[in-house]
Order: sequence, then structure tokens, then C-alpha cells
Amino acid sequence: MTDCVFCAIVAGTAPATVVHEDADVLAFLDIRPIARGHTLVIPKRHATELDELDPELGAAVFRAGHRLARAARRGGLAADGANLVLNDGKAAFQTVGHVHLHVIPRRSGDRARFVAGLLLRRPHDAESTAAAIRAGLAALDAR
Amino acid sequence: MTDCVFCAIVAGTAPATVVHEDADVLAFLDIRPIARGHTLVIPKRHATELDELDPELGAAVFRAGHRLARAARRGGLAADGANLVLNDGKAAFQTVGHVHLHVIPRRSGDRARFVAGLLLRRPHDAESTAAAIRAGLAALDAR
Ligand SMILES: [Zn+2]
Ligand SMILES: [Zn+2]
Repeated sequence: MTDCVFCAIVAGTAPATVVHEDADVLAFLDIRPIARGHTLVIPKRHATELDELDPELGAAVFRAGHRLARAARRGGLAADGANLVLNDGKAAFQTVGHVHLHVIPRRSGDRARFVAGLLLRRPHDAESTAAAIRAGLAALDAR
Repeated sequence: MTDCVFCAIVAGTAPATVVHEDADVLAFLDIRPIARGHTLVIPKRHATELDELDPELGAAVFRAGHRLARAARRGGLAADGANLVLNDGKAAFQTVGHVHLHVIPRRSGDRARFVAGLLLRRPHDAESTAAAIRAGLAALDAR
């Protein structure tokens, strides 16, 4: 798909800080994170909306999001939870026309910071953030 | 699990307007909907948070949510999209301690109504709303 920034990331022609990749999905840091560790999970094959996404690819996207939410509790992010959000369609505030699941790590008592993050969406250090997430994924694998 | 309202719904000892049920998951109307057709999808087996939820059960929850989002575009709800939201952990605003995925149908131009819905969470007619969703599911099945 020309002009799809997420397809360009999959193809390696646009930059991204990737934290997970497998045959079906790619997960990378949101460049305008609501909170530190805010990650997007996408199907590698282009689908604009859920209506055109294969159900098994959707399940693969969610499995990766589930795993990233669990990893955030273990790695350097030390999260206490996460919001998983998939905005399907422009009516639902979808801003990039390639299906993506947000995984937003949360900490107890971070409500004010979370609301500020919704407005500011300021990037954190990508490499140390990605390392913190990868450490959580490795901790899950080690069990 | 005693004292879990969602387990009571699964057991049939608490009321709910069910729109989908299979071996793994149950989907029913949120009693305090943000928008008409706001549905919750839960695993039938109790899991408080994603950290204790079997990944395949999580995938089953998401598959059902994906299908409900597609159904909302077809049935009487005539949705243009949906927000799928899973708040994992009290830190992430999870209010019932049994994993649940919100599926919130959206209409183009409903932003002001959506924001009001977030505050008011006023119920709609449950039976006609459930019928609209079931019609969408039937339309998907008929293809
Ligand atoms: Zn794409
Ligand atoms: Zn329960």
C-alpha cells in the first residue's frame, strides 16, 4: 500500500523502534506516546479497518498486545496495568488508516500524568524505553 | 468466584442482556453504556486481570469483540466504527475485577454525544438494542 506509514514501517522504509516482531504482527513505540512505553501493535498485512481484517490476524494482534501488557508489569516499566485500545474507523478517532492496537502501560496513581500525556504526547527516550519492554518480554519467556 | 458480578452473570444468577455466547466467552450489554450498543465481552472462566488470563482465552475474547465491531456496522446500530477498550488493572481504570473488553459502537459526527455519554452513561432500551446487534451478527453469518 503506497502512502501507508505503517506499511512503510513493516517494509523497513520508515523508521520505528520495534519491540516485537513475528510472522503476523509488528509492535513498535508510538512516536507520540500518552505514557512511557506506549506501543502500537499492527498486522503486517495492510487492513484499513477491522471490517477488512482477517479474524485470525486480529487475534494475533491481540495476543501480542496481551503479552506486551504482561511484559510491562515485569520489565523496567514496572507497570501496574495497561489500557489496550483499538479505535476502529475515523468515527472512533482512528488517525492512521492501518489497524493498530494501542498498549499503554499504567502506574498506580498516574491519573494526572496520564491526562497530561493525552494532551502533550511527548516522546521519551526510545532506546531505554524499548529495552525496558524487551526486558519484560524476556522475563515472560524465562518462566 | 464468589462476589464476582460477571461470574454471576455467567452462572445465570445475575441478570444481563446477552448478545453472544460460545464455549469460551459471553457478551452482554453494559448497564451503563457510553453509547447505544456498548457491549462487554468476558471470558467465562474467571480471570481478574490479563496477567492471569490464558492467551488463547484472550484471543477468543478479542475475536468476539472484533466480530461485534463488524456487526455494529451492519445491524440496526448502523455504526461507522467502534472503540475496543480493555482496561487492565485498577491503575488503568478497571472497575470490575473480571477481565472485560468494551466494544463501543460509534457514528460519524457523534463526538459531542460520545463525550456526554462518558459522563452520563444512561441506559437505552436493552431489548431493541440487543436485537439491533443480533441483526448485525446474523448479517455477518449470512455472507
Ligand atoms: Zn498499511
Ligand atoms: Zn469473575
